[in-house]
Amino acid sequence: MGPHPAVAAIRLAVRRVLHDILAEHGSTFVPARAATHVGARDAARSPVAVPAPSAAPVAGPGPLVLVACSGGADSMALASALAFEAPKAGVRAGGVTVDHGLQSGSDERAAEVVQRLGELGLDPCESVTVTVGREGGPEAAARDARYAALDDAADRFGAAAVLLGHTRDDQAETVLLGLARGSGIRSLSGMAAISGTGGRYRRPFLELDRQTARTACMAQSLPVWDDPHNTDPSYTRSRLRHEGLPALEKALGKGVVEALARTAQLSRDDADALDAWAGQAASAVRDAAGFLECAKLHTLPPAVRRRVLRRAAIDAGAPAGSLFARHIEEIDRLITGWRGQGAINLPGRVVARRQGGRLVIRQG
Amino acid sequence: MGPHPAVAAIRLAVRRVLHDILAEHGSTFVPARAATHVGARDAARSPVAVPAPSAAPVAGPGPLVLVACSGGADSMALASALAFEAPKAGVRAGGVTVDHGLQSGSDERAAEVVQRLGELGLDPCESVTVTVGREGGPEAAARDARYAALDDAADRFGAAAVLLGHTRDDQAETVLLGLARGSGIRSLSGMAAISGTGGRYRRPFLELDRQTARTACMAQSLPVWDDPHNTDPSYTRSRLRHEGLPALEKALGKGVVEALARTAQLSRDDADALDAWAGQAASAVRDAAGFLECAKLHTLPPAVRRRVLRRAAIDAGAPAGSLFARHIEEIDRLITGWRGQGAINLPGRVVARRQGGRLVIRQG
Repeated sequence: MGPHPAVAAIRLAVRRVLHDILAEHGSTFVPARAATHVGARDAARSPVAVPAPSAAPVAGPGPLVLVACSGGADSMALASALAFEAPKAGVRAGGVTVDHGLQSGSDERAAEVVQRLGELGLDPCESVTVTVGREGGPEAAARDARYAALDDAADRFGAAAVLLGHTRDDQAETVLLGLARGSGIRSLSGMAAISGTGGRYRRPFLELDRQTARTACMAQSLPVWDDPHNTDPSYTRSRLRHEGLPALEKALGKGVVEALARTAQLSRDDADALDAWAGQAASAVRDAAGFLECAKLHTLPPAVRRRVLRRAAIDAGAPAGSLFARHIEEIDRLITGWRGQGAINLPGRVVARRQGGRLVIRQG
Repeated sequence: MGPHPAVAAIRLAVRRVLHDILAEHGSTFVPARAATHVGARDAARSPVAVPAPSAAPVAGPGPLVLVACSGGADSMALASALAFEAPKAGVRAGGVTVDHGLQSGSDERAAEVVQRLGELGLDPCESVTVTVGREGGPEAAARDARYAALDDAADRFGAAAVLLGHTRDDQAETVLLGLARGSGIRSLSGMAAISGTGGRYRRPFLELDRQTARTACMAQSLPVWDDPHNTDPSYTRSRLRHEGLPALEKALGKGVVEALARTAQLSRDDADALDAWAGQAASAVRDAAGFLECAKLHTLPPAVRRRVLRRAAIDAGAPAGSLFARHIEEIDRLITGWRGQGAINLPGRVVARRQGGRLVIRQG
């Protein structure tokens, strides 16, 4: 008798990702100590086998793959699938849990998660305590601290990859959060299946629904921990999950989560293509001295021109996070609606002005 | 004392659109009869003055602008603003109401709307009865019948433009409906401010909220009719309006409608740019015989390649409405994941296959 269908589904998702990681690293992956030596980043980034410093390929025990585990259903399911698939794939599997220190008893819970990961056979396993700042709000600050800790752990252990348990439902929520910003298709593109330095973060469950992960835990009798933050209505994502998205599904039908996830993928590809176009256009519309020529900017499609302008403002020192659509529109009117208007003040003391057919964007 | 702020807002919105229409048609607009003669489409499309058939410019009484009016708050507000602004702009103003014949007494209501439009000073005014089919569901069928009737009325009267009362709230709903399809950024781009043959349809209220239109009607003591369909939960849009969107606003904050409308505009520009790129790429990746070369297709960004493939499938006879993302992905794997797979069957008896480094898509 085979495994429960939900267990089979989570294992297949992990197997595919391990296969990708092995294909990128080959069988001559540099073991932890050597990888730290040559720089874990290079090792993880390289699409081909990285020779050990001795120059002779090392027949190591296989690359190390870590799972980031909160103890919740999604990441416990991921940890269990990694523990099952890793030996078969010739990969070493470890786990990291991040103690955000935001709830009393979080240290005990983190220790419990480490113990469970160890019981699954993961090695190394560790808990990392982080200090959550305030920048960008509580959710963003916790996320920043978490990824910094995971980056550090991956570097220390020389891990080839860190698996994250984000599901299709998380992806749908992320798309809606991006939609609420109204800042264009890049913010609709959600989370990438591969991200981070050298593509170290992998999200095997991005096309799997949350219920499958939960069912897989139950089928394997894995205890899971339900983070009270996930149901706390003071968190935007929690309100979205428990009220916004269900209401949207009621109005639009059951396929909404899937449609949002597909929108993320399509938007990501579209945004990548337009960024590439804008990157090329940014060189083509400059004069010999490197200034943007208004006449050439004018011939670009609006979507490309706005990206060129946004990039120029950021390069001049405007902080990306403070640069809104209305700023770009105002710069754009120097090109498309020129009637002698004055200089435009942008965030970061950056000023955009039109001078003799050139667009000059600089700090000062 | 000036008008109520809501009334000022709707008038300003209409004034801007009338200004655009006049700029496109000049003061030598061909009056109704002559325009019908040279073809209303050409007249409406032309960005410059269209000479009358006599070759000498006709100093006519100004172009005719129609308002499409259901009798609801949005379109009654629009009709009142058009009636106020048209004489000042040197434009003739008329109105059309469409009787869909879907509710008992709809003919009496249509007659009442015509009477109200006449009382506002619009001339000509008429009610058009349509027969709503079944294709694409009740909402799509009603919409198709309505636009066909409006097109016909515009042609008959030689109208330069037809104003539609869609508000920013309608736009937000349309974006969410597109999102639910999960078919990419084109379906997120909502309604255009200018659309239809020769850009005849104009939506002056696309950046105005529904409440402003309603307030403007109250401030002018205009009676409005609340279509029971708008609150009927058997209609998707109605569920979205009264349940989905409010729940989303509760979760994400008050700016959701505005963010969705901005997403529409940005997505439309992005989709236009990518379509233009794909149009150029489609020629560049063909061999001398006109076949798509797989090696060249492979070098395109995925977002552009998928658009080229989609267009090729439609050109070969696949109905656009039946062509889904999964079809395009399957064709794409002939390029990016070639392992000798067989022909791919597409809707409309179109077949895609790879033959000697060429992608052949044709019916049969």
